[in-house]
Amino acid sequence: MTSTSSTSAAALPDHIEHAMLGTMRVPRFDDVLRAAQAIAPYVQRTPLLRSPALDALVGGTVWIKPESLQVTGSFKARGAFNALLALTPQQRERGVVAYSTGNHGQAIAWAARQLGVSATIVMPVDAPKTKVARALAQGAKVVHYDRERESREDIGMRLLAETGGTLIPPGDHPEVLAAQGTVALEALQDLPAGARETLGLFAAPCGGGGLMAGCCLALDALSPGARRVAVEPAGFDDTVRSLRSGRRETNAPGARTLCDALQAVMPAELPFAINQPLLHEAVAVTDAEVARAMRFALEELHLVVEPGGSVALAAMLAGHVSLRGQSAVLVLSGGNVDLPVLQSVMA
Amino acid sequence: MTSTSSTSAAALPDHIEHAMLGTMRVPRFDDVLRAAQAIAPYVQRTPLLRSPALDALVGGTVWIKPESLQVTGSFKARGAFNALLALTPQQRERGVVAYSTGNHGQAIAWAARQLGVSATIVMPVDAPKTKVARALAQGAKVVHYDRERESREDIGMRLLAETGGTLIPPGDHPEVLAAQGTVALEALQDLPAGARETLGLFAAPCGGGGLMAGCCLALDALSPGARRVAVEPAGFDDTVRSLRSGRRETNAPGARTLCDALQAVMPAELPFAINQPLLHEAVAVTDAEVARAMRFALEELHLVVEPGGSVALAAMLAGHVSLRGQSAVLVLSGGNVDLPVLQSVMA
Repeated sequence: MTSTSSTSAAALPDHIEHAMLGTMRVPRFDDVLRAAQAIAPYVQRTPLLRSPALDALVGGTVWIKPESLQVTGSFKARGAFNALLALTPQQRERGVVAYSTGNHGQAIAWAARQLGVSATIVMPVDAPKTKVARALAQGAKVVHYDRERESREDIGMRLLAETGGTLIPPGDHPEVLAAQGTVALEALQDLPAGARETLGLFAAPCGGGGLMAGCCLALDALSPGARRVAVEPAGFDDTVRSLRSGRRETNAPGARTLCDALQAVMPAELPFAINQPLLHEAVAVTDAEVARAMRFALEELHLVVEPGGSVALAAMLAGHVSLRGQSAVLVLSGGNVDLPVLQSVMA
Repeated sequence: MTSTSSTSAAALPDHIEHAMLGTMRVPRFDDVLRAAQAIAPYVQRTPLLRSPALDALVGGTVWIKPESLQVTGSFKARGAFNALLALTPQQRERGVVAYSTGNHGQAIAWAARQLGVSATIVMPVDAPKTKVARALAQGAKVVHYDRERESREDIGMRLLAETGGTLIPPGDHPEVLAAQGTVALEALQDLPAGARETLGLFAAPCGGGGLMAGCCLALDALSPGARRVAVEPAGFDDTVRSLRSGRRETNAPGARTLCDALQAVMPAELPFAINQPLLHEAVAVTDAEVARAMRFALEELHLVVEPGGSVALAAMLAGHVSLRGQSAVLVLSGGNVDLPVLQSVMA
C-alpha cells in the first residue's frame, strides 16, 4: 500500500489493491512535484532541444523533449520508479507484476532490478523483440499473451493470485501518472526566462493517456495558457472520440498501426478523469505521417524515435496541430524500435 | 583581430592574420572557461547519458557526451561561435571564410547567420549532401574544391584576398580550440559528485586534433588522473604516428574511410602543440568497427551518430581502449550523416 492511496482501501489484501481502480485517488500537481524529487536519482533529466529546420517547417518555436534518451528508452521509467519507490517493504518482498505493450514492462523490469524487487512482465506475443530481450536481460520473468484472443488484465490478475505481488498498471496508478507529469515539469523548468508564461502549445503522444494526464497537471499549474494536445495513431483514436462524447470510447478491434506502443483499447480510467477536463484537443495521425516524422527525427534531430514516440511530431509536421508563430513543447516519448522497422520507414 | 591574439601580429593586415599560424598563441584552461561563458547563449548544453548495455559490454561505467545533439549537429558550433564572437566590428563587416570537410563549415555558416556576419564556405566536392544543403540554406556562399587535385588552403587564401574577410580555420585558431574544450568542461561539471576525481578515461574522435586538444586543457586542469585517448580512422592515423615520432606525420594520399569528418592530411599545428605533451594515447579503428558503433548507437542509445562521430565508441566496443572497471567519458562528436550512408551501415 502506498502512503498516498485512499484510506478506504486499507482493509483490502495488499496484492489486489492496486488493481481496484475504483479506490484510486486522482493525483494533483503536488504529486508531480513529489515524484520529481523521488525519481531524480534514478532517471535522466532529458534536455530541451531546438531544431531550426523544424521551426521553419511548422512556423513557430519548438522545444523538443526527447524521452527517447530516457533510461530504458522511454518516459515510462519515470512512472515505474515512482511506483516502486512507493511500495512498502512487504510489497517489495513479494515483487511486482506489469502488463505492457513493451515500454512500461521494460521500465518496470529495469526499476525493479535497480531497487532489488522481483518483476513479472506480461507482454503481447508480437511485442518488438528488443523490448522482450531487454526485459529478460534485466532479470524479469516474461509471460506472453495473444493480443487478439486473451486479456492482459486477466493474465495479470492470475499472476497476482499466484505470486501475491503488486500490479503496477501503466496508467491507472496515481504514482505512475504523477511521475509522467515530470516530463512537462522539467520542460517548463528548463525553458528560457519568460518562455513558460508565453508557451502556446504542449503536444505529446497518447496511448492510455497517462503521459498526457500527468503533463496536464503540471501545465495547468505552471503554464495554464498553453494549449494541451494529445496525439494518437489512426485506428486508435479513442481519446479523440472520448473527448467528443464525454465518455471512454473503445477502438474497433482489428485495427493496425505502426505505433505498437499506443495500441490502447480505450482511455485508461484515471488518466481520462484528468484528461477530460484538462485536455484541449486530441488528433490522430496516419502511419505515413508517422514514418515521415521518424525520418525527420533521424535526419534533422539525429534521434531514433519509435513510431509511437513520434506521433506528436508527425501531427505537427502534417499540419494537424497549428502553431501560428507561437512556441511549443513537443514530446518524443520513446526510442525503442527494432532496426528492421527503422529500415522500413527509411526506404 | 581577437583580443587574445599575440601583439606581434598587430601590424599584419586583418584579413590574413588568422592564417599566419606562427603568430598564434597556445590557449590555456582559462580560455576554455571564458569560451564556456561566451558561447552559452548560442549552443546546446548536451546531456551526459548512460547506457547499461554499453557498460556491460566494455566492463566499466561510461558517461556519453552526445555532441550529435549540438546546434548544427556537431561540437564544431562551439568553436565557430567563440571565434565569431571574438571578431572586431570591422572584421564582422568583412565577413568570414572557412574551409571544412563539412561540420566546421556548417557551424561557421550557422554562427555567422546568428551573429549577422556573411560567410563563405570552401567544401570538398564529395562532402555529404546534407552538409552542403544546410550551409546554403543558412545563407552562406559555398565554394567547392576537388580533395585530390586542389588545396583547400590555397582556395581559402584566394577568397581572403578577394573579400578581405577573416579565415576561421577548424583547428589552428586559439578561440576555436578553447571552445572545443567546453565539451570536456561540461562533461566534468555534470558528472555526479566524486566521479570527476576518479574518472579513469576520456576518449574522443580526432581529425585535425582540435576537439581533443581543447578537451586536454580542461582535463589536465580538472581531472588530471583521467587517461586522454584520441581515436582516428584507419588510413588517417596521423596522430597515432605523430605521437610516436614526436613530429607531425602526414597520411598517405588516396586513403579511404567512412569517416568523412576525420580526413585530415596531418595533425593541425596548434592542436598538436597541446596534444603532444597532454595526450596519453591515440588509436585507430576500421570502417567495420565504425559501422558496428553506429548500429549500436541507433539501437541502444537511440542516437544517429555520423561515422567520424562514432570512432571513440567504435574503439571502446572493439576493445582498443580498455576500461578495466574504471569510469570514462566518451564523446560522440557529430550526427550529420546522409540517410543512404545510415542505411548502408544498418544492412
